[in-house]
Amino acid sequence: MIEINETHDQNLKSWIESANAPGTDFPIQNLPFCVFTRACTYENVRIGVAVGNFVLDVYACYESCLFDDESFAIAVTADNYCLDHSVMRKNTSVQSAFRRRLSEILSEKADENTRKSVQRNLIPIEEAQFYLPAHIGDYTDFYSSIFHATNVGSMFRPDAPLLPNYKYVPIGYHGRASSIVVSGTEITRPKGQNRTNPDAAPEFVPCRNLDYEMEVGFFVGKGNELGETISIEEAEDHIFGLCLVNDWSARDIQAWEYQPLGPFLAKNFATSVSPFVVTMEALAPFRASAFKRPEGDPQPLEYLYSEQNEKAGGFDINLEVYLQTQKMREENAEPFLLSRSNMKDLYWTIAQMLTHHASNGCNLQTGDLIATGTVSGESKEERGCLLELTWRGKEPLQLPNGETRRFLEDGDEIIMKGFCEREGFRRIGFGECRGVIAAAE
Amino acid sequence: MIEINETHDQNLKSWIESANAPGTDFPIQNLPFCVFTRACTYENVRIGVAVGNFVLDVYACYESCLFDDESFAIAVTADNYCLDHSVMRKNTSVQSAFRRRLSEILSEKADENTRKSVQRNLIPIEEAQFYLPAHIGDYTDFYSSIFHATNVGSMFRPDAPLLPNYKYVPIGYHGRASSIVVSGTEITRPKGQNRTNPDAAPEFVPCRNLDYEMEVGFFVGKGNELGETISIEEAEDHIFGLCLVNDWSARDIQAWEYQPLGPFLAKNFATSVSPFVVTMEALAPFRASAFKRPEGDPQPLEYLYSEQNEKAGGFDINLEVYLQTQKMREENAEPFLLSRSNMKDLYWTIAQMLTHHASNGCNLQTGDLIATGTVSGESKEERGCLLELTWRGKEPLQLPNGETRRFLEDGDEIIMKGFCEREGFRRIGFGECRGVIAAAE
Repeated sequence: MIEINETHDQNLKSWIESANAPGTDFPIQNLPFCVFTRACTYENVRIGVAVGNFVLDVYACYESCLFDDESFAIAVTADNYCLDHSVMRKNTSVQSAFRRRLSEILSEKADENTRKSVQRNLIPIEEAQFYLPAHIGDYTDFYSSIFHATNVGSMFRPDAPLLPNYKYVPIGYHGRASSIVVSGTEITRPKGQNRTNPDAAPEFVPCRNLDYEMEVGFFVGKGNELGETISIEEAEDHIFGLCLVNDWSARDIQAWEYQPLGPFLAKNFATSVSPFVVTMEALAPFRASAFKRPEGDPQPLEYLYSEQNEKAGGFDINLEVYLQTQKMREENAEPFLLSRSNMKDLYWTIAQMLTHHASNGCNLQTGDLIATGTVSGESKEERGCLLELTWRGKEPLQLPNGETRRFLEDGDEIIMKGFCEREGFRRIGFGECRGVIAAAE
Repeated sequence: MIEINETHDQNLKSWIESANAPGTDFPIQNLPFCVFTRACTYENVRIGVAVGNFVLDVYACYESCLFDDESFAIAVTADNYCLDHSVMRKNTSVQSAFRRRLSEILSEKADENTRKSVQRNLIPIEEAQFYLPAHIGDYTDFYSSIFHATNVGSMFRPDAPLLPNYKYVPIGYHGRASSIVVSGTEITRPKGQNRTNPDAAPEFVPCRNLDYEMEVGFFVGKGNELGETISIEEAEDHIFGLCLVNDWSARDIQAWEYQPLGPFLAKNFATSVSPFVVTMEALAPFRASAFKRPEGDPQPLEYLYSEQNEKAGGFDINLEVYLQTQKMREENAEPFLLSRSNMKDLYWTIAQMLTHHASNGCNLQTGDLIATGTVSGESKEERGCLLELTWRGKEPLQLPNGETRRFLEDGDEIIMKGFCEREGFRRIGFGECRGVIAAAE
């Protein structure tokens, strides 16, 4: 568990003015990592750190001799085109030292020479083209919101919404790594088998019930060897940082295909992630206790239980989903808020997910992405997907401009946001995870 | 569809005597690819081709100027440490030309100079250390044997063994890429949640019902871009070749965890593959019609149907599974034959699996591994896993030495073999896929 330290001090200011703006996602207390090029060239894929309205080119800073310690050099020089080949696979102590150095050179305490050197390596965020932060070897998606699982279960199995394993097993499944795309990538409506009439053959048609899922993802830092496990006490040392995930879902395809082996084509046509990875250290001030299990619920089995995890295994991260339809864009209308939920309401912590994942000796590798599943809360306004919000399409949403939505239409854009706020600390944010639906081809 | 040509001529002999032995898996008509090092050094990972009792070092042959055409050079020089960076991503015409050249230099018609050059680059197969043939970005497992699906279904859902989607949807799910290992890798018995008493909490214990699954895998050759599909007519142009797959399965973990999102820790602790990839061209003489659907079964939907696929979409590949227990090894007893099945009995062809997989625009990439699921036949002797053979452990197997087996014990070795035989053609084989069970740690 990473302690709160001087890099989290709310009074720490940057000499980069936009990093001090009250609403920014990227104050000097955040410093999330990304991978980018300058959009004018699309050349020299680089590791970056977001600060205010800029991206800091980390490799260029190294070349400018801003990192004098050897470990910093190691962290950014070898194969510097993605995080999993550099800082992501380092020990947490190296990552932490690197964060302190970044904080120093961006702080208003930095001297004039340092500022000048850094200044040359700042790229306005709107001039950057972002890429996936890591080479994602395997992608796993969990199902860790009990509110989501109960809502979905009650639509498909009204008599038994929550299966008997749910409170013992952090349920998860393998997703598709190849179709993970970065925020801003257009999402083509998939085609697939749809069977609306149970007495007729299914049709192969464009998806009719296209949905998003508001999730949080975490990147594996240090991995484990095949056959080794990761204890719940060690789990967080293997997690590098968090991002936003939109697990696009074709509900009609899913309903027909998912038995008995789970979702497949309903999910693997695309998964969007936000470009910024907020580190575990940046999140240190925003920890929460693990979900308080209702009376009567079993305690986690021993391998999933630690006092530390119960006390501070959760994350207090506010999640918001917005919809902007084609018509709304044409009318210059603001995106419409669909839901607000919070990651602290998950039944399982990410440490428990990771420990469970490796509990059979499955080898996790640096850069693997593991997502939480839809983050829904208890109330209706906290439902993290349209399946829940419109109750499988039965209760269409009324949008302010008169449009209605059961599921997503072509031209709709989904915009996800995440941020942390706590008295006595600077607000930090995750940036956005966006995607527009394009018509089926 | 690749035509039978001069490289398949049964009268073609090699100047390498062991390639002409009647029982060899690797006559000159086969020429499967692999990735290897010399076991004495474990250095210089190379692409190889198996022939008789040898592995031909393809890159060394290139350096010896045995491939004069530019396309052969391209096929073997760039990043030559795995097949997906070389021959696997080439067009079928280039692959085919490459096969013709390999056939020439290994044929008894080759001149003395050629033989001398080749000779230097032959490594006895027992001196080679094999690796995964490709960097497997994503691994997908299907469920394409209707006999397997019916048997398993009838254990878990006696009233509805086969779900309504089975005859329309080639059912598949994403597996774990990181834990795929090459034949010969020891398999550690996984631990996991096991709930035998439905009134008590599950226990976290070593797997009690450890099983194998006899499958065939195929490697994606040319991939498709995200959002693009692959028609059933083009599907086979995207398949490079086939290998044997053992999808190790923890049945007790599976039964408890698999609902509602499918198998996860029950499968992802390890998957073994044979080191040799038998190319689509080598298999040309051993094609079979697609599974003859019983009267009353629906025809495949249009996107999964082509006359060509119905006529010759299947593969006549004999599959055998052997068990050698620790005691049998100590007694020098021969491995015991557990089952014989045939790939032609699959309900879906691999072309249908591939087309279905990409039908929603999911991008398949060179080197991806797609497996068929357990290949079982109609009769009892053709059941491709212990779950079926012992009917969930209720009918233990009697081994010749007096031992019995419900599921796998520590020290058991599973040996899988595959081969093709047809009047008028040389027999070709897949080599072996082996794995010994080690005790849980």
